[in-house]
Amino acid sequence: MKKKTYEGYTYVDGGVCAAKGFVANGINCGLNSDKNKNDLGMVYSSTVCNAAAVYTQNKVKGAPILVTKEHLKATGGKAMAVVVNSKNANTCNADGVEKAERICELAADALGIDADMIINASTGVIGQIIPIEPFEEHMKELAGGLSADGNDKAANAIMTTDTVDKQVAVEFILGGKTCRLGGMAKGSGMIHPNMATTLNFITTDVAISADMIQKALSEIVKITYNCLSIDGDTSTNDTLSVMANGLAGNEEIVTENDDYAIFKKALYIVMECMTMMLASDGEGASKMLECTVSGAPDQDTAIIVAKSIIRSPLTKCAMFGEDANWGRILCAIGYAEADFDIDKVDVDLESEKGIVEVCRNGSGIPFSEEKASEVLSEDDIYINVNLNQGEASAKAWGCDLTYDYVKINGDYRS
Amino acid sequence: MKKKTYEGYTYVDGGVCAAKGFVANGINCGLNSDKNKNDLGMVYSSTVCNAAAVYTQNKVKGAPILVTKEHLKATGGKAMAVVVNSKNANTCNADGVEKAERICELAADALGIDADMIINASTGVIGQIIPIEPFEEHMKELAGGLSADGNDKAANAIMTTDTVDKQVAVEFILGGKTCRLGGMAKGSGMIHPNMATTLNFITTDVAISADMIQKALSEIVKITYNCLSIDGDTSTNDTLSVMANGLAGNEEIVTENDDYAIFKKALYIVMECMTMMLASDGEGASKMLECTVSGAPDQDTAIIVAKSIIRSPLTKCAMFGEDANWGRILCAIGYAEADFDIDKVDVDLESEKGIVEVCRNGSGIPFSEEKASEVLSEDDIYINVNLNQGEASAKAWGCDLTYDYVKINGDYRS
Repeated sequence: MKKKTYEGYTYVDGGVCAAKGFVANGINCGLNSDKNKNDLGMVYSSTVCNAAAVYTQNKVKGAPILVTKEHLKATGGKAMAVVVNSKNANTCNADGVEKAERICELAADALGIDADMIINASTGVIGQIIPIEPFEEHMKELAGGLSADGNDKAANAIMTTDTVDKQVAVEFILGGKTCRLGGMAKGSGMIHPNMATTLNFITTDVAISADMIQKALSEIVKITYNCLSIDGDTSTNDTLSVMANGLAGNEEIVTENDDYAIFKKALYIVMECMTMMLASDGEGASKMLECTVSGAPDQDTAIIVAKSIIRSPLTKCAMFGEDANWGRILCAIGYAEADFDIDKVDVDLESEKGIVEVCRNGSGIPFSEEKASEVLSEDDIYINVNLNQGEASAKAWGCDLTYDYVKINGDYRS
Repeated sequence: MKKKTYEGYTYVDGGVCAAKGFVANGINCGLNSDKNKNDLGMVYSSTVCNAAAVYTQNKVKGAPILVTKEHLKATGGKAMAVVVNSKNANTCNADGVEKAERICELAADALGIDADMIINASTGVIGQIIPIEPFEEHMKELAGGLSADGNDKAANAIMTTDTVDKQVAVEFILGGKTCRLGGMAKGSGMIHPNMATTLNFITTDVAISADMIQKALSEIVKITYNCLSIDGDTSTNDTLSVMANGLAGNEEIVTENDDYAIFKKALYIVMECMTMMLASDGEGASKMLECTVSGAPDQDTAIIVAKSIIRSPLTKCAMFGEDANWGRILCAIGYAEADFDIDKVDVDLESEKGIVEVCRNGSGIPFSEEKASEVLSEDDIYINVNLNQGEASAKAWGCDLTYDYVKINGDYRS
């Protein structure tokens, strides 16, 4: 997947540890029988952070979400650490909340902080009782190993069916100070976010109030993660948190000023990039799909149409087969639940190999199948739709539907 | 797939020819290069029929739908014949309506009737110009071969990626007369109906007004075809028509009397059975899934929850893997867009091998994995959900998601 370039923002290494003052670690505590795979991760800032989060809108919510919400409410948007495990979602268990609270207490003890300073998250199989012993036995080891280059270990700990870890960070100037914002994400299947997605943890050294983080986060999640669909299944454990410790030394952002715009753009870049990483590594994916809908009467219509295309199993299969079967794209545009005139729609298929125009004014036009096959042979495919009835636009991301998706999910639990 | 039994209704052979006075035929006219596969079908009643139809709600509509709507409007709900082709959907073509009208004229000429007495439908690839020559050259042959046992040939003509044809008919007593109602359906992929589905043609010798057919059809389509999802893609060409020629000799049904109730039940049985046939033969399907949601506050909630489960790719993959991963079912219940309390939900998995209780009050309960594997080894799987917060219920149907779905759709056009 090719990262996009944005003027004034430079990609840097380090993920959640890229920003000043953040340390991380990841270990295998025994939830995962593969000792080479981490299953417990931690991110920590010794300086108290302003924090905000968004969560799944699924009625079934993982117990960690209920506990994290309570913590952020109790502290008025403050946090110092994330503790997160994979392999077990701690969801649909009668004792889930009790266990999540216990995990936070263990982490708080190991760090010498209050339990309500902890953001907790879990991912994995739904509906299996989570054993507490691995946490009791390994939490001190986890906290003891925190380091400024522990981001890889933490990113590994949150992976489930992911084939690669997802980390990104950018450096930028804000209020005369060099700032950084970075994060890590997991997710591969059960991805069709609604107000949040998968597990994502973002850290920054920018000084900004919790309210302003929440505002930026809510706006950007709508046009990044919420425009991602791997399979149409909205997870029960989606959590995305942002922690800002202020160590960059800029004047704290408390209004929508120029500094806020710079911060918001950094957040957008990191979230867009992680969205694309998640799409590229969708379960079984061989191709990343980015659909841009322009010429829409309003942004919501553009989003609805773009997501409808990205979600269409038949379109996804056609992309896997490198088949320019654009009728399926038009079909998915046609059943999108929005109000627009289908007879004005243009569709192009694009990749690094070029552009093929396949549909004008809702009807097919002659095109070279040879050229189309060449364009669709690339790993990153761009589906460009112009509704030709307005000025608004939006993007959505996803991946092709392959044999491997079925293979991975035909027997996930074993 | 096991047909359900209903007292007072007996399954009979004959499909669209089961009812008195209906003849049918199917031929290969050259749209399909496989000469052993029919691609053009016809159903005809020499007695004028009262008729009604429902169509796709996709904004992209096949040209035949536009033409058929005009015809039924012009005649005030009368029809004598269906002419239908596979291999080309005649959709997203600039000259589509003109071609569909020409096809109706050719059929009308061959039958010696008015063109507006024709119901036209097409299915196949979207966005390819439909050649008119095969229709011009073969329409007389098609009409000349109409016979009272031509239902198999017609049912073959509408198949696309279907592996078996779908025909069903029932016999019943209404107003002291022996009546029949039967039909044929096609459809395998691009099935997620919204107010109609796929191609379905139903015939009956019951005497009933067009208005009363439309009323029964609209009510039943909501709880049968519209509760079917193979892949979440709503087709552009969905058409379901009912033709009633009155040859059974009953007093014409013009109000909601007892005879109407008997007719409506016959229509339900045939439509439910064809829905299940479509689900069983969903593209790549190895299992038919029937989800029953009971204890709902209202029917719409029950339908929304049942369809959410049936559509979930992760649930579908788990069924393919014969894996009792019920957390995915609860996840799909949780993101259903309806208002209810998730903490009261019970889930059972059932087949001819027995029942396994997997979830009570929204949380997992211990169950035998061995027993679950045995239950899920069957071809027809029943997912039973009780919301425990009302009296309403509904069913939805679908199939598992398999390697073959991807294979079939990775390169459908070639």
